[in-house]
Amino acid sequence: MSTTTPALSSTPRSTPTRLRERARSDRADLHAVLDAGLVCHVGLVRDGEPVVLPTGYGRVGDTLYLHGSTGAGWLRVLDGAPVCVTVTHVDGIVYARSTFHHSMNYRSAVVHATARVVRDPDEVLVALEAVTEQLAPGSWWHARRPDRRELAATGVFAVDLAEAAVKVRAAPPNDDEEDIAAGGRWSGVLPVRTTFGTPEPDPTLPPDTPVPHHVATRH
Amino acid sequence: MSTTTPALSSTPRSTPTRLRERARSDRADLHAVLDAGLVCHVGLVRDGEPVVLPTGYGRVGDTLYLHGSTGAGWLRVLDGAPVCVTVTHVDGIVYARSTFHHSMNYRSAVVHATARVVRDPDEVLVALEAVTEQLAPGSWWHARRPDRRELAATGVFAVDLAEAAVKVRAAPPNDDEEDIAAGGRWSGVLPVRTTFGTPEPDPTLPPDTPVPHHVATRH
Repeated sequence: MSTTTPALSSTPRSTPTRLRERARSDRADLHAVLDAGLVCHVGLVRDGEPVVLPTGYGRVGDTLYLHGSTGAGWLRVLDGAPVCVTVTHVDGIVYARSTFHHSMNYRSAVVHATARVVRDPDEVLVALEAVTEQLAPGSWWHARRPDRRELAATGVFAVDLAEAAVKVRAAPPNDDEEDIAAGGRWSGVLPVRTTFGTPEPDPTLPPDTPVPHHVATRH
Repeated sequence: MSTTTPALSSTPRSTPTRLRERARSDRADLHAVLDAGLVCHVGLVRDGEPVVLPTGYGRVGDTLYLHGSTGAGWLRVLDGAPVCVTVTHVDGIVYARSTFHHSMNYRSAVVHATARVVRDPDEVLVALEAVTEQLAPGSWWHARRPDRRELAATGVFAVDLAEAAVKVRAAPPNDDEEDIAAGGRWSGVLPVRTTFGTPEPDPTLPPDTPVPHHVATRH
């Protein structure tokens, strides 16, 4: 990170109206939340109503890339459309002495932008590498890359990360003094983690095919 | 589940335009996806542009409940507004022999509705119990319930589950025959799991306070 990296924007819609102590303003925080994710939730407006769809993504600098089948309805309305892309990690369940103070520890990034269709063939490949490596690090190098027919079937969109809000809660419960004094009730955090299980080889692989390093060592 | 439970709706926006084999039409599938989640992503339209925010939720029958501080900007625009509520579980990374066929195993529910503010005090309590028990099963019974001041600070919204789409992918990679025949590349699924860690007691608890059963046994 350069020290001249611009801070996150502070437009009205990306400035939290409450719980400001949870807001982060460093671009590095935004990148960290995005880079740790597997899916984003893309919001768009269709016929005046909101649609929220989960999908993979990749990041290159301050651009987020989305991709999908050119046959998917939501991709067809994306070019030039306002979008909101949100990535959320749940890190813990906050059990307070009161139900009111129950909460989650989490990290979230909310990005507002206008989606741009990517047509430049070089940028398409950069985007697909980023999306592939976000989902499955190492696969861009191990797997067969897209051919012309596959590229023609794939829509790629760019989302600028200039306007974004990052929120993080990473703390014990925020119990009221009276509830602490009253005693008798538990309070604490139950950590939530996303982990990878044992790789399940495809049934068509020859028996005893070793699991490659980039899959076996993922954690 | 009664056998007379209505199927999911099939309005144009809740009917997948592609990959129909991933679509599920049983209401029980919708309930299962929702009941397994911790956060939903709520989409709404503000000033003509989409906003997607993560938040907790609870389900009672075919109603989803959301809650939040009455000071939160997004809650103030929710009553009578069209919303899209999406819950997604990532179950596995699908490593195919080609990057094109890389995918995820997942379960997702996408609900379209008009949000309704809940004002009836009895329904507010039903909703808050559902939201609390979704986040922290057992806490509605263990923790102190909301008092009048806390209730006044909490906005509760109902989202009808009539119009929803459920998609599930739970399968090995879908490699092309030519890539299978070519050999030399790994293919398979890396399972993704959400797990709970060791409870972290609040620093204000008396030493050696036992972790209650509903927290200690959560999995």
